[in-house]
Amino acid sequence: MSSVTASNPATSCRIGLGYDIHKTGPGDHVWLGGVKIDAAFSLVGHSDADVLLHAVTDAILGALGDADIGHYFPPSDEQNRHRKSSDFVRFAAERMQSAGYKIGNVDCNVICELPRIAPVREVVRESLADLLGASKSQVSVKGRTNEKQDAVGEGRAVVCQAIVLLVPAT
Amino acid sequence: MSSVTASNPATSCRIGLGYDIHKTGPGDHVWLGGVKIDAAFSLVGHSDADVLLHAVTDAILGALGDADIGHYFPPSDEQNRHRKSSDFVRFAAERMQSAGYKIGNVDCNVICELPRIAPVREVVRESLADLLGASKSQVSVKGRTNEKQDAVGEGRAVVCQAIVLLVPAT
Amino acid sequence: MSSVTASNPATSCRIGLGYDIHKTGPGDHVWLGGVKIDAAFSLVGHSDADVLLHAVTDAILGALGDADIGHYFPPSDEQNRHRKSSDFVRFAAERMQSAGYKIGNVDCNVICELPRIAPVREVVRESLADLLGASKSQVSVKGRTNEKQDAVGEGRAVVCQAIVLLVPAT
Ligand SMILES: [Zn+2]
Ligand SMILES: [Zn+2]
Ligand SMILES: [Zn+2]
Repeated sequence: MSSVTASNPATSCRIGLGYDIHKTGPGDHVWLGGVKIDAAFSLVGHSDADVLLHAVTDAILGALGDADIGHYFPPSDEQNRHRKSSDFVRFAAERMQSAGYKIGNVDCNVICELPRIAPVREVVRESLADLLGASKSQVSVKGRTNEKQDAVGEGRAVVCQAIVLLVPAT
Repeated sequence: MSSVTASNPATSCRIGLGYDIHKTGPGDHVWLGGVKIDAAFSLVGHSDADVLLHAVTDAILGALGDADIGHYFPPSDEQNRHRKSSDFVRFAAERMQSAGYKIGNVDCNVICELPRIAPVREVVRESLADLLGASKSQVSVKGRTNEKQDAVGEGRAVVCQAIVLLVPAT
Repeated sequence: MSSVTASNPATSCRIGLGYDIHKTGPGDHVWLGGVKIDAAFSLVGHSDADVLLHAVTDAILGALGDADIGHYFPPSDEQNRHRKSSDFVRFAAERMQSAGYKIGNVDCNVICELPRIAPVREVVRESLADLLGASKSQVSVKGRTNEKQDAVGEGRAVVCQAIVLLVPAT
């Protein structure tokens, strides 16, 4: 486990980029940002497959120069089966605080044909802000389709991209 | 409409990430960054389908923790049919100014097999800078192909990714 | 060649976003971040096809509002055939220094089914940090699969996304 604190005191900002993709499967809901959302399918994964929380977690860990989500929560570990992804993002937020940083802002793109993001945007933003210990105004969740192109556009997968700006906590 | 100004005065930087994709269709030109460019096809969309301006608009709104382009300019609104996308990016720039921010810099990747971006890079940068009220040196437009892979590589779509850094205006 | 220094002295941060994709082909190794890694394939390209260094190079040039990698190192130039990509990233780092910037931090996502990134993460980080004149703690390399979706998921291509934060050197 790398020691971010020692080698890099929080004197300037840092940025991170997260990317996650999950296949769709049979089911009636997906998890997005810690919120259970009705859908005509589920997302397949070892945990709750919360594609948005995974992307945000990885963006924070990446900004810190830390290892990635798979390092700390390997799918091969039976403990992580059906685990709630809120554990992952809270873990990343703790690593961030230990390293002397806080959230500047977060911007996420959920790319999927369905579910529609607009109706759930505000509740997802609130949930994500809560999990990060940030205010809702620091958290953005945008949705768009992939115009029926490729796996996402054909409804076989959902992608999330997330970017984070971390600023010194003091 | 969320009030960015009240809840989050512009005391630190903010970043945003935009993603847009449009299908190709019959035609002889595309719009990129507000510039009409000869092509062997068009991009399909309700507005002028300017994939670059849409990505930049969404990146700015995302950085602000604002709603996204679809919220302010819904495709279902007949007023937005064939609308010039310069309206969208100017709207985002106004929101940015109202919230106390200005452009730090913008970096865009246009991913397409054609048209070639290199020959139009400088004119597109100038146009985008003008629309944003920024200097050309603050605006980057890069092009690359998708190596013939997937919808973009097969010429069925064009993607643009944009990243923006907003800094306090004062 | 645009003069970044004159028009935009390094008084604030800048961010850049890089994207690169290479097709897989016959072979037994790939280059990632300047490190030769065993694989059951190679990546196809005019240079050594180091998809990670290309994305980082483009992210730095984009942050500077500079031209992109294809402008400075055109594939059509026979000199660039089989060229080591470390030349490209060192060139970008020199442009960065000339413009008055240094690396704040870099975060990269290598998206591929294989090779696995976790076992080579630390050596790739060290190599990339060396090439950039940065410390390892400023450099993040994350890996993940594309869940068997699209060209990357079917093993036909490898993608790298990179984000950089540049800060004034003084
Ligand atoms: Zn995931
Ligand atoms: Zn669009
Ligand atoms: Zn390349």
